[in-house]
Amino acid sequence: MPEASLTVAGLSESELLERIFPRLNRGSAGGTAVLLGPGDDAAIVAAPDGRTVLSIDTLVADQDFRLRWNNGYRTSGYDVGWKAAAQNLSDINAMGARPTSLVVSLTMPPETLVSWVEDFADGLTAGLRGLGAPDCAVAGGDLGRGRELAVSVAILGTLDGKEPVLRSGARPGDTLALAGTVGRAAAGLALLESATDFRALGSGARALMDTQCRPAPPLAAGPLARDAGATAMMDISDGLVRDGNRLAAASHAVLNLDTAALKELCVPLLPASDLLGTDPMAWVLGGGEDHGLLATFPAGLQLPPGFTAIGSVTAPAATDSTGVTIAGRPADTVGWDHFAD
Amino acid sequence: MPEASLTVAGLSESELLERIFPRLNRGSAGGTAVLLGPGDDAAIVAAPDGRTVLSIDTLVADQDFRLRWNNGYRTSGYDVGWKAAAQNLSDINAMGARPTSLVVSLTMPPETLVSWVEDFADGLTAGLRGLGAPDCAVAGGDLGRGRELAVSVAILGTLDGKEPVLRSGARPGDTLALAGTVGRAAAGLALLESATDFRALGSGARALMDTQCRPAPPLAAGPLARDAGATAMMDISDGLVRDGNRLAAASHAVLNLDTAALKELCVPLLPASDLLGTDPMAWVLGGGEDHGLLATFPAGLQLPPGFTAIGSVTAPAATDSTGVTIAGRPADTVGWDHFAD
Repeated sequence: MPEASLTVAGLSESELLERIFPRLNRGSAGGTAVLLGPGDDAAIVAAPDGRTVLSIDTLVADQDFRLRWNNGYRTSGYDVGWKAAAQNLSDINAMGARPTSLVVSLTMPPETLVSWVEDFADGLTAGLRGLGAPDCAVAGGDLGRGRELAVSVAILGTLDGKEPVLRSGARPGDTLALAGTVGRAAAGLALLESATDFRALGSGARALMDTQCRPAPPLAAGPLARDAGATAMMDISDGLVRDGNRLAAASHAVLNLDTAALKELCVPLLPASDLLGTDPMAWVLGGGEDHGLLATFPAGLQLPPGFTAIGSVTAPAATDSTGVTIAGRPADTVGWDHFAD
Repeated sequence: MPEASLTVAGLSESELLERIFPRLNRGSAGGTAVLLGPGDDAAIVAAPDGRTVLSIDTLVADQDFRLRWNNGYRTSGYDVGWKAAAQNLSDINAMGARPTSLVVSLTMPPETLVSWVEDFADGLTAGLRGLGAPDCAVAGGDLGRGRELAVSVAILGTLDGKEPVLRSGARPGDTLALAGTVGRAAAGLALLESATDFRALGSGARALMDTQCRPAPPLAAGPLARDAGATAMMDISDGLVRDGNRLAAASHAVLNLDTAALKELCVPLLPASDLLGTDPMAWVLGGGEDHGLLATFPAGLQLPPGFTAIGSVTAPAATDSTGVTIAGRPADTVGWDHFAD
């Protein structure tokens, strides 16, 4: 069988692993926390301050991405590997922690091309290195068969002896700030689902599409925010309003977004909104997959590099009236919910 | 909509989480290692000796289990929850470690009944408690939608300051020993796939079927073997011969199985082999999902409770002739391989 058409059904599990292992990120010799890597029943990872930060996330084909989009773009293994890295790194970042290692479970239909899987491993490695976590090594994993392609990643991080930044610490008077972007991945999704052939897109629109396929969360921002004294923080994965509502509820507070700041966030989305004739504000308020960081800081504090003020924290009028407001008026919940759309 | 027919599509993610959370195992107040549980971007788990043991495994419907079997049995959410617990606990056990926490990612078709998900949470909790890991708390997770039901669990464990038992330490002269069972889950699988209605099975056959649906790995055996001086150890998840070959390769050794011991292992399988007219030895050599523990101990050492000698370790005739033999003759590789069947 020619190499280009070789599928995972044509290899044993050990043959497939032999092709994947050399492509996985191992971290630098002295930098990685992985004490025992792939090949035994479990991995062993250093947790130097006696704690480990832990999260899990899954990407499923035709749910979290399409293998072939309406605009003709085909999601590569590289895209999925990169996106899995980005999504998981962002969860560790949002605690103010530093990623140390991850394990991957890959479920594949038998017709999956081996080259796609190799490309996936390359994308995962490129994501870890390109996003600023070169020492976050792949410590192990699991390969299995299924009717639909799915990737689960569990990631570990270290707080380096410091305190985590939780969702619950925002206080009235705090400045509300954003690191990274919002709405770009949602605008990119709209382009991918549109009828406009992706090869015809200008560079601005193409960059938005790329954010959906290979998001670039601000990985250094989490620990910087922690060190600067952030009172609360979270990853925006389901949208500014929906996730803001969660932070507001955990902190028993109201997050008031500033209209001028929101309008500013619309500007980079114009290449898509002009093309599709849609309102970019819906993407800013509801789009999550950029994996930007939402954080609150004591008033008057100089924001750490990468953060921009987008509003402020106020006290709720009643205990059950926490949430996000825009210029003082309740924002609609327009973010993505996996079940009730 | 009546409660019994309520599906996950009828609830928001937060409504579904509200139903699951109270059912999840939290560990005892002083016993759990979970410092920060579900509700933030990531969990925080204590790693008192500065290391954490980490593994990930996925169960996929129609691959690792059928929602409805040929013999009429329907896999319950409870079964899948229990099996996910068992499979993952066993990986930690096989390192000689103690499970401390886990995170779960559940991917569900929209038509999944809410009652099935509640039952899954109950089975996961019952598995953790029933198998001897009551303080292994669920630290977090992720819910998502997909066309097929899948569960990924990542689990953490602690070595309590001791050394792990790897696959690579078996030495010529060592005794080869087994804790737990082999072949029972495979015999149960054959019953599930047979035409004999499960309600007509006798108690012996029904117990084998139950081992496939709710395996009971010997969770205390791993740390006991470590403390007793086991030289190598692994979880039998893909079959005695296939996994034995892996341990043999990692240790550059030959594992010679004793025929009398193998015949003894066939006895509990007779209720299924008599019914189906098959050879129970194939299940003993190839069946993996009991999650028994295969370990090697220095010769003459009294085996720890739960272990039975099933053979011995010898030196390979050449560097590439490692593997499993039966009474000195190479064993066929009859275990399960996910890709090349």
